[in-house]
Amino acid sequence: MTFTAAVSGASGYAGGELLRLLANHPDIEVGAITAHSSAGSALGALQPHLHSLADRVLQDTTPEVLAGHDVVFLALPHGASAGIAAQLPLDTLVIDAGADHRLQDPAAWEKFYGSVHAGTWPYGLPELPGHRAALEGARRIAVPGCYPTSVLLALTPGFAAGLLEPDDVVVVSASGTSGAGKAAKPHLIGSEVMGGMSPYGVGGGHRHTPEMEQGLSLAAGERVSLSFTPTLAPMARGILTTATAKVRPGVGHAELREAWEAAYADEPFVRILPEGQWPATKSVLGSNYANLQLAFDAHAGRMIVSSVIDNLTKGTAGGAVQSMNIALGLDETRGLTIQGIAP
Amino acid sequence: MTFTAAVSGASGYAGGELLRLLANHPDIEVGAITAHSSAGSALGALQPHLHSLADRVLQDTTPEVLAGHDVVFLALPHGASAGIAAQLPLDTLVIDAGADHRLQDPAAWEKFYGSVHAGTWPYGLPELPGHRAALEGARRIAVPGCYPTSVLLALTPGFAAGLLEPDDVVVVSASGTSGAGKAAKPHLIGSEVMGGMSPYGVGGGHRHTPEMEQGLSLAAGERVSLSFTPTLAPMARGILTTATAKVRPGVGHAELREAWEAAYADEPFVRILPEGQWPATKSVLGSNYANLQLAFDAHAGRMIVSSVIDNLTKGTAGGAVQSMNIALGLDETRGLTIQGIAP
Amino acid sequence: MTFTAAVSGASGYAGGELLRLLANHPDIEVGAITAHSSAGSALGALQPHLHSLADRVLQDTTPEVLAGHDVVFLALPHGASAGIAAQLPLDTLVIDAGADHRLQDPAAWEKFYGSVHAGTWPYGLPELPGHRAALEGARRIAVPGCYPTSVLLALTPGFAAGLLEPDDVVVVSASGTSGAGKAAKPHLIGSEVMGGMSPYGVGGGHRHTPEMEQGLSLAAGERVSLSFTPTLAPMARGILTTATAKVRPGVGHAELREAWEAAYADEPFVRILPEGQWPATKSVLGSNYANLQLAFDAHAGRMIVSSVIDNLTKGTAGGAVQSMNIALGLDETRGLTIQGIAP
Amino acid sequence: MTFTAAVSGASGYAGGELLRLLANHPDIEVGAITAHSSAGSALGALQPHLHSLADRVLQDTTPEVLAGHDVVFLALPHGASAGIAAQLPLDTLVIDAGADHRLQDPAAWEKFYGSVHAGTWPYGLPELPGHRAALEGARRIAVPGCYPTSVLLALTPGFAAGLLEPDDVVVVSASGTSGAGKAAKPHLIGSEVMGGMSPYGVGGGHRHTPEMEQGLSLAAGERVSLSFTPTLAPMARGILTTATAKVRPGVGHAELREAWEAAYADEPFVRILPEGQWPATKSVLGSNYANLQLAFDAHAGRMIVSSVIDNLTKGTAGGAVQSMNIALGLDETRGLTIQGIAP
Repeated sequence: MTFTAAVSGASGYAGGELLRLLANHPDIEVGAITAHSSAGSALGALQPHLHSLADRVLQDTTPEVLAGHDVVFLALPHGASAGIAAQLPLDTLVIDAGADHRLQDPAAWEKFYGSVHAGTWPYGLPELPGHRAALEGARRIAVPGCYPTSVLLALTPGFAAGLLEPDDVVVVSASGTSGAGKAAKPHLIGSEVMGGMSPYGVGGGHRHTPEMEQGLSLAAGERVSLSFTPTLAPMARGILTTATAKVRPGVGHAELREAWEAAYADEPFVRILPEGQWPATKSVLGSNYANLQLAFDAHAGRMIVSSVIDNLTKGTAGGAVQSMNIALGLDETRGLTIQGIAP
Repeated sequence: MTFTAAVSGASGYAGGELLRLLANHPDIEVGAITAHSSAGSALGALQPHLHSLADRVLQDTTPEVLAGHDVVFLALPHGASAGIAAQLPLDTLVIDAGADHRLQDPAAWEKFYGSVHAGTWPYGLPELPGHRAALEGARRIAVPGCYPTSVLLALTPGFAAGLLEPDDVVVVSASGTSGAGKAAKPHLIGSEVMGGMSPYGVGGGHRHTPEMEQGLSLAAGERVSLSFTPTLAPMARGILTTATAKVRPGVGHAELREAWEAAYADEPFVRILPEGQWPATKSVLGSNYANLQLAFDAHAGRMIVSSVIDNLTKGTAGGAVQSMNIALGLDETRGLTIQGIAP
Repeated sequence: MTFTAAVSGASGYAGGELLRLLANHPDIEVGAITAHSSAGSALGALQPHLHSLADRVLQDTTPEVLAGHDVVFLALPHGASAGIAAQLPLDTLVIDAGADHRLQDPAAWEKFYGSVHAGTWPYGLPELPGHRAALEGARRIAVPGCYPTSVLLALTPGFAAGLLEPDDVVVVSASGTSGAGKAAKPHLIGSEVMGGMSPYGVGGGHRHTPEMEQGLSLAAGERVSLSFTPTLAPMARGILTTATAKVRPGVGHAELREAWEAAYADEPFVRILPEGQWPATKSVLGSNYANLQLAFDAHAGRMIVSSVIDNLTKGTAGGAVQSMNIALGLDETRGLTIQGIAP
Repeated sequence: MTFTAAVSGASGYAGGELLRLLANHPDIEVGAITAHSSAGSALGALQPHLHSLADRVLQDTTPEVLAGHDVVFLALPHGASAGIAAQLPLDTLVIDAGADHRLQDPAAWEKFYGSVHAGTWPYGLPELPGHRAALEGARRIAVPGCYPTSVLLALTPGFAAGLLEPDDVVVVSASGTSGAGKAAKPHLIGSEVMGGMSPYGVGGGHRHTPEMEQGLSLAAGERVSLSFTPTLAPMARGILTTATAKVRPGVGHAELREAWEAAYADEPFVRILPEGQWPATKSVLGSNYANLQLAFDAHAGRMIVSSVIDNLTKGTAGGAVQSMNIALGLDETRGLTIQGIAP
């Protein structure tokens, strides 16, 4: 059986990655492809790597154009999803790659996004405890943020098993520039970013912080607080997260490793690397895979977890397709690549 | 029906890319994976991006290990293929990703490679006139070099149609560093190559030059001579070729464009871009696709063709799998990606 | 004795590089720093690498602000220099880093720039025959384009010595992205340019082509025609030029090498590398140096010259300061770096 | 007055950067240039960016060759400095760019380096409290490690002023690949490092950790413990450090900012950026400068300091020259660049 899927926001990086995956998906037929200011252009002029769809013309992003598909992907600026979704049939699977429906706490939404909260949808990270079941048959799904995906995969097993202290998580992530989007901004041009690194949103201001705290708190069963510093790395894709938390007294390396390995033993897209091997973002490029490695620094009393994902694949579009597969009752790995592109 | 395939030279970049494609190929089961000094290691330690094969252990590269597969891929240093191939059954499909069996002229081989010529096998570039038929049912195939693939795709239509002068072709190519292999050499470490460009093998010395001249001469029906300058670009993958040739008197832009478009109208992996759009190596990253664009510089009397491929995919392993598909009677595009990974 | 210098266009890359060099120049005091839309900002917000000038505030680019300095550098969009220069005193040294005053042929200017020609100023490439003398005491200087600098340094000795055929020069250059300027354009953002290469302005359309032909024709004493293809490389700075020309019958490698070595024997900023060593753009990063290497491809009958410069230093601001030194009667190397920054 | 300086380890990155700076230093004459396996080669073949020294031939690294200079720089593998230094006159200024003489605690040395401790020399980071005085007239100086330089500059003001908790410092740094040296190792080749990030030495194992704890403990007057995670970024040069520490109760943003600004008010090479501007490694490329920015995350109770340096300049060779200037009684900024090379 083939499902039809529409993709809005097709001129951006999330939209382009969604189309790349959907064009290769054996059970999906790509229907409407929509955009805002680029409507009327051929996709080949905007996403020249999508060769099989090069001659498709972008339509306007309206409920009318999107309706009539089995699945509608929204890859829109935050704040734009709720209005569109409200005009789509309730039995259409609507998958929001934006932030609008991720947070459960309206106050957190308002503090970080400055608008009225649009409500919460099932959270599309099936590897978290209990989340997969909530996605089965769902017709509204919120795709996690790319940083939260990398952080929640890194730390959830320890909090779920009660091995980590909740009050002083410190996370530093390095992201490829595609995470900053496709809009041409002076600090994002190649001459500025190639060959250098810089931080941004330091001091607790990044909008993904409450999403991370929400996920970890759910797993821990108590409030987890976290310091998050994102940095921009000179690469187009990939996130390397260094996530550290204090270990509860008496917990040792073996117990920690067992908790993580148990948590992901049956997951098709997450792997704890053999000891001694460290993850590299290039190993998961273009794939829906996450690699983790763990270290227990007894001297500092901290657990350090390194995680890598491709921000556009597992961190956005791949995670979205994985959740779609679950919601539609397809095999969870359908249409998703396991191997990374390297070197 | 499923075919079994063995891959030798699995620790290198060509071997890794072959395994990446074969692991995703619906009609192939990956059999023996072999190497030289890395035999005994787990593949995951050497090719950490090949997640589905991470626990496979590399075997020694011997005829005994390779025999018993429907297909054997040889990704070995030049000079090593002939000896192995001679010990494999005649009805085994042997595909040599190395240089040993590409050249028809033993003198050219000896001049550029300094050893005795091993003989010529069908040349695995089905887009060239008459080449696809020679690959059907073949049991020995020579995979073209990465630079020759980009140059022959760029210029063959013009020579085949008699529109170009044969005596003064000038080609400059920029290649990603994976084309130089995985051996750790001082001038290839990241600190040296990131952020800079340099030429090498200038003045006619590059071993791919006679292969380019052979292919163009076959198409032209007369001897074509060529100046080739390769350069090393700060990127892991991709070749951008700028190929120029003098245009025969009286030939104009429209006639040129028609010849190229006719040559590739039915090709699944080659596309002439719309006028005004220039090819970019990132558009074909990880795909088996080639993009071309043409310009006629009337002032200089020269045709300039820009072509881009991924040197490891269409330029090596993808081209090998495409030829394998033809030889085995499978759909030519089976197991190969059309979309590039971008950005 | 100290000279005062004003820099206009200080928010761009050429302006920034001029200020970097002038701030380190022992005989120069940096006076007015001007810009267009950025007037009123602190330089530190726009050029954060210029630490010693971080608190300086940009002024408007007007003749009044620029007047009263010994030297005025114009780093403005093409077409903007002539009007400003006409309002500056005749004994002020005005150095135009833009294109307005480079071409001698008004028809070439109009064809490639589409406006009325502003007149020709002494051409600031002192290494060309006769050019140094014309710069001594000059009060108007046109800084060469970055590509022409690399091409003219590469090929002039052969044309000046009558060793090369004038009718079929082929040049392919790879430039760092800073050559495309600091304006935020979609195809120049880091996600698009990192990890890939692409051509542009193919087929004779690049505005630097007539400037190259002008310089080579002057050296040859006859009309030289040239095919030029620029490509964009994933690096911030640097130009690698591959320049090829047919060699006149009977001319050999030794004669060619002698001509080049004689031409540059006394030049402080140009060096022919020892045979066997190829130039790398990183070797000249941030320096005013050019490295060349030569090859004679007897098979193809072509001379291939590889040249590398830093497009912003020797290719723009360093060349401008070198010419300023000559015009002011200072030592030509004053304030200029010989060593590149590597790795 | 001119001093003579010898540089050992001249084939590596630290040695090359020392020579770059010394060749431009107005008070230094470069004497012997020595190496180990590269002795006998021309410097131009190994460090092609050092144009003014290209024809100098490398000598063997022996006490005899090094003796007779006013200053001797040792850029040798750890463990090699002590033996050489013992054979140099006591009034020769010996500056060790290696690790041998940095640590005060022999037990820490033995734990992390596995050999007998060679003794402690004055620590060449004059910006730390009391350190500048100890360098005046010194004849033995230990150059700090590159990561410790970035971390100590980032956090020392807070510990010296008693504003930070000593027991849970968390540091994550991203370094350019030149920090890993010039030896050709498989995981450092360009194809592997371009376009990706990876951690290494996670969990407290990096040798620079005790050096950081030593410096911070000295400033704090009590034992500071620290978790350090280094990561490798796809750039040749630069370190971005994200250093976080818990803030003592009652301390606020204003007090923190005042402490840092007071600490560096008179420093020629350190600057706290204006609020709202974040540091970028490219801003300090090739310069001896450090840029810092501060954030107080009240929600997490942590101070986050971002610092950037060029690992080869301020982090190694520039810091060495700065200390040399102090020891010799020269102006501290002599021969050192303030401006970075950007873009």
